[in-house]
Amino acid sequence: MGKVFTQASVSLDGYISGPGQSGFDRLFAWCTAGPVATPTAVPDRLTYRTSEATARYLRELQDRLGACVVGRKLFDLTAGWHGRHPSDVPVFVVTHRPPPSDWDPASPFTFVTDGVASAIALAREAAGHRDVGVGPGGTVADALRAGLLDELRMDVVPVVLGGGTPMLAALGGTAPIGFEQVEVVEGIGVTHLVYRRPAPRPG
Amino acid sequence: MGKVFTQASVSLDGYISGPGQSGFDRLFAWCTAGPVATPTAVPDRLTYRTSEATARYLRELQDRLGACVVGRKLFDLTAGWHGRHPSDVPVFVVTHRPPPSDWDPASPFTFVTDGVASAIALAREAAGHRDVGVGPGGTVADALRAGLLDELRMDVVPVVLGGGTPMLAALGGTAPIGFEQVEVVEGIGVTHLVYRRPAPRPG
Repeated sequence: MGKVFTQASVSLDGYISGPGQSGFDRLFAWCTAGPVATPTAVPDRLTYRTSEATARYLRELQDRLGACVVGRKLFDLTAGWHGRHPSDVPVFVVTHRPPPSDWDPASPFTFVTDGVASAIALAREAAGHRDVGVGPGGTVADALRAGLLDELRMDVVPVVLGGGTPMLAALGGTAPIGFEQVEVVEGIGVTHLVYRRPAPRPG
Repeated sequence: MGKVFTQASVSLDGYISGPGQSGFDRLFAWCTAGPVATPTAVPDRLTYRTSEATARYLRELQDRLGACVVGRKLFDLTAGWHGRHPSDVPVFVVTHRPPPSDWDPASPFTFVTDGVASAIALAREAAGHRDVGVGPGGTVADALRAGLLDELRMDVVPVVLGGGTPMLAALGGTAPIGFEQVEVVEGIGVTHLVYRRPAPRPG
């Protein structure tokens, strides 16, 4: 079975967006800061242009991704990716509200109203042996709190945003949560840091 | 003239201490997680034991450090390092209160009551061609806000603390502040990330 991971472009002060949904130009500048093209499933809309090291990191992620779990905020912010996620995988939207009235029910999006754990279970089933991407946004803290997140991928961007939406919302009593550092990839205008939950000890 | 930098052990969610001053065991575990010894000026109190890569990173820092600027909170938390900072350099304490009543006035500590900028100016003078370390703590945001910080060093530790004291307190209108990514060093249980303010363009 695949892993459940999250990945986010994050500022030096830990934000995935600046005050008032600002800062995305800075946070995603690395996506087009280099010479090597990595097309997504919608290359006209998004083709990465990065260093070779970052391109390898992105290709590995693309090859492994089988489904996504996102919050309603991200879904609304991207207008539901116009019905097709750049990774071309099934998407599970955690929400308390019905889909937009003009939403095409044939698009590979499932609206899950009973929480992150349920959405992750459905996404794992859809992904098979491949991985499930969660978030970014509030869903990540929910998944982490529920012990459902295996891997944390931070694309650290050299900007201080000074406020906004933190990558990890306050976790309360669940923390501290220890990870193992498994990979560091230095790109152009970004450093990719990969962490995993330690394997449970055989008992 | 040397640089003004800050360095801090920081959790994946951006905290330099957990809720209620917790988490220091996790945040500083990397300091003694490897085979290579790097003594400080007070080796009995603090000798780093790290990977060779981290040891190189630490030695370079030690060689360059000429003075420190710290907040009163850190001074109090460490009991003023018992009068001798592990780096054995002059320390400038930003404070609104007088020194502790039993403080030895001969120790190389200066209590600065008119703010971070003034403390940094005094520290630069004391450091000569060497660097000035600022913080960690609230002094860092003050220095950044005043445009006085040249370099940001984050020792990223694989733990989520869930709350506490952020490395960079909210900066308000000064942000966003862009940096250049200059060095990435992968250690044992830590990744050292070094960022610099871009050089001003010749005008």
